[in-house]
Amino acid sequence: MVQISVVGAGSVVFTGRLMVDLCLTRSLSSSTVVLADIDKKRLKMMYNLATKYAREMNTNISIKKTIDRKEALNGADFVINTVKVGGYEPTETERKLAENYGYYRGIGDRVSDYYGGIGAFHQLKLFLDLATDVEEICPDAWLIQAANPVFEGTTLISRETRAKVVGVCHGHFGYVDLLRTLGLKQENVEVRIAGFNHNIWLVDFLNNGENAYPTLDQWIEKKAAEYWKSAEYLNSPPWVAEQMSPAAVDMYRLFGLFPIGDTLRSASPWWYHIDLKTKQRWYGPTGGFDSELGWSMYLDLLKEVLEQLRVWSSDPAVALTEVYPPTYSGEQHIPFIDAIANDKEVQLQLNIPNRGTISGIPDDVVTEVPAIVGRNGIRAINMGQLPRRLMLHVMMPRMLRMEQVLQAFLDGDKKSLLLMIVEDHRTRSFEDARVLLEEQLGKSWNSEATKHYK
Amino acid sequence: MVQISVVGAGSVVFTGRLMVDLCLTRSLSSSTVVLADIDKKRLKMMYNLATKYAREMNTNISIKKTIDRKEALNGADFVINTVKVGGYEPTETERKLAENYGYYRGIGDRVSDYYGGIGAFHQLKLFLDLATDVEEICPDAWLIQAANPVFEGTTLISRETRAKVVGVCHGHFGYVDLLRTLGLKQENVEVRIAGFNHNIWLVDFLNNGENAYPTLDQWIEKKAAEYWKSAEYLNSPPWVAEQMSPAAVDMYRLFGLFPIGDTLRSASPWWYHIDLKTKQRWYGPTGGFDSELGWSMYLDLLKEVLEQLRVWSSDPAVALTEVYPPTYSGEQHIPFIDAIANDKEVQLQLNIPNRGTISGIPDDVVTEVPAIVGRNGIRAINMGQLPRRLMLHVMMPRMLRMEQVLQAFLDGDKKSLLLMIVEDHRTRSFEDARVLLEEQLGKSWNSEATKHYK
Repeated sequence: MVQISVVGAGSVVFTGRLMVDLCLTRSLSSSTVVLADIDKKRLKMMYNLATKYAREMNTNISIKKTIDRKEALNGADFVINTVKVGGYEPTETERKLAENYGYYRGIGDRVSDYYGGIGAFHQLKLFLDLATDVEEICPDAWLIQAANPVFEGTTLISRETRAKVVGVCHGHFGYVDLLRTLGLKQENVEVRIAGFNHNIWLVDFLNNGENAYPTLDQWIEKKAAEYWKSAEYLNSPPWVAEQMSPAAVDMYRLFGLFPIGDTLRSASPWWYHIDLKTKQRWYGPTGGFDSELGWSMYLDLLKEVLEQLRVWSSDPAVALTEVYPPTYSGEQHIPFIDAIANDKEVQLQLNIPNRGTISGIPDDVVTEVPAIVGRNGIRAINMGQLPRRLMLHVMMPRMLRMEQVLQAFLDGDKKSLLLMIVEDHRTRSFEDARVLLEEQLGKSWNSEATKHYK
Repeated sequence: MVQISVVGAGSVVFTGRLMVDLCLTRSLSSSTVVLADIDKKRLKMMYNLATKYAREMNTNISIKKTIDRKEALNGADFVINTVKVGGYEPTETERKLAENYGYYRGIGDRVSDYYGGIGAFHQLKLFLDLATDVEEICPDAWLIQAANPVFEGTTLISRETRAKVVGVCHGHFGYVDLLRTLGLKQENVEVRIAGFNHNIWLVDFLNNGENAYPTLDQWIEKKAAEYWKSAEYLNSPPWVAEQMSPAAVDMYRLFGLFPIGDTLRSASPWWYHIDLKTKQRWYGPTGGFDSELGWSMYLDLLKEVLEQLRVWSSDPAVALTEVYPPTYSGEQHIPFIDAIANDKEVQLQLNIPNRGTISGIPDDVVTEVPAIVGRNGIRAINMGQLPRRLMLHVMMPRMLRMEQVLQAFLDGDKKSLLLMIVEDHRTRSFEDARVLLEEQLGKSWNSEATKHYK
């Protein structure tokens, strides 16, 4: 009898999957789901789909919808945040502005939508507003923070509010691509992955209880070159191909642990990202997730899914359980809720304040680590020390950037925003950076940010 | 009756000044000074000068010389390290190699001699060897670390050995240039300056007990432009002109505290240092201490001083107290020794493990702060929090670079050295950086470094 409130329920990436997972989880079959989104049309579509799915699956799940966030939070035991403020279009415009000044694919950690616009302002503002509402309206609820930037966002909320926040992402499942490529069976393998969100590394890698890194080393030495000529590699979508790309192998050589999932995108060094040709060398024919090719494939996919959902939601003849087969999606939201609500202990990959889990990271910085979840909450598995070169050349610079983003946001500090751009490897002059920042802030959707950053 | 051992006694910058200060300090007039240097000729000259000076000043100071460092440490109460391994020439060659790849004035924090060559290897190796000798031979001695890099070196020694180490520098006296320019009298002014060595900031600035920052702000608003056209500014040597240059004003605006001394050089942002013309805009006609003009002025000055010392040491007719007037130099070595040895409490600007002195800096990172010194040792004055933007955009990146330098050195980690070069804003490609590193390591004086970094 738990209430799950989904804020940003119009998200085509998450909401469908969560409904499938929820319907499959019989111990949650009498839950209430409240879908909230400010886009009425999208919300209605999602509501229709969810209702239909729950009915087809013979559950007692009760589904509500609202455009009022505070109403959605009323009575919530779990709040899932999947909001992307303003959608992707403003980000695309900001990217084009930046490209005029030589920032190929825009500013911001080389990942297309990572910050969702200048200084991550819109996302962070929403996160803080939402968490403050949670504090007031449903202070005992868990806030499941799935919206990007998860690293900055979860750290911000955990520092600035008393909301019980946990960050989730699906990126760590990139290790499944690794196993498939190496020909290892998932049931024999044990992995532990740790770092910051979008910056996670394969710390433990065991096959039948034995260190499996030598198997990976052998694959690199003997099979990688061949694999990179294979149809499997050349035809995979970028988010799959990336995981075993030359970039992955090179990052492993440079930093001592194998990078997992979005790490290939956002923790990769600047010289992989000079232009499309360079990206293609590192990430395969698409140039990876964040190239103009890879990213438009992703945006097209989103459109396609949305179109499908539209058709399915409006055609009573479609059996949703046929087009959207009832198998667990792999997303962690529902398993987390089930573990807490029904004390079904489970190990998940979660973003929580570090508190000693990775050595050398401050307690109040959120790390992404394996953790045991049950009714009593979350217990991280201690990950010890990461390799020193990885810490000093990847983790600490990323942590510093997180602190800069949060400081600029919390202090409304425009100079700090500007310094972040100037410090980008590609910045040609202080003046370029200054003018670009003004141009970005001058866009209509940034009027609130313009007032905020002084 | 203390013994002061000076390692690297051939240094023309320090040794003369220290002798003057020592001879002036009557409570140390029966000290023993042991001068050690591997350059016999230089050592002999310094020995002759020191002996003559002590005699002219009617002191009982006993002066010895040795080319054997361990012998010098025998019986030492204080060890002063002023070594620059290999002198300046190799650094100049390394700089030229780097300039072939677009690194104007070479790699390494924009300061000509700061690291003394690739990875600071030669200096750090010597520091650690010396501190280990101190541990064994004179474990109760204070090791006064004046050789660069003071930040890396003092942190390294304090972490890796039990030697009682303290770092000293004279850079903080740059505040005297500030007072002179503002027309403030030193006796009315109280300053407290804090940060890392070569990265220090005017935290407290009081004139007759009142905050004097508004006086500085007024000068900037009303008088700076005129001052920058004055003969005083245009004709000053770079190390003086820098302190009140457009760079200083801009750094103050960017980071919220006024930069002091070498901070103008090594904590200034990359875009001041693109080429000579740009440097001249920020630092005046010489382009600052580290431009090709400023640095050659410094090297010429060193040569000139050396030549003078040669003449003076070999001409019995020269009265040293006339050519080198007996007034305190401002260096802190002798006041520190006097305070410890004779319990003459004094406030100095020292480099010591932070242990809470500046908020947000780990305990085992050496900070440069005001401290009270007496027989019981050193008590830092708590400096609290620095402005957040300064911390995140200047201090933390500098701290991270220190950690990278020490990690590369301690682990013999060539990839880490390489990553430091690649991360330089000016690096055009990974391959450029890789080839440059190999070229640097290939130089004859780097053969030991080549073995060390794998």
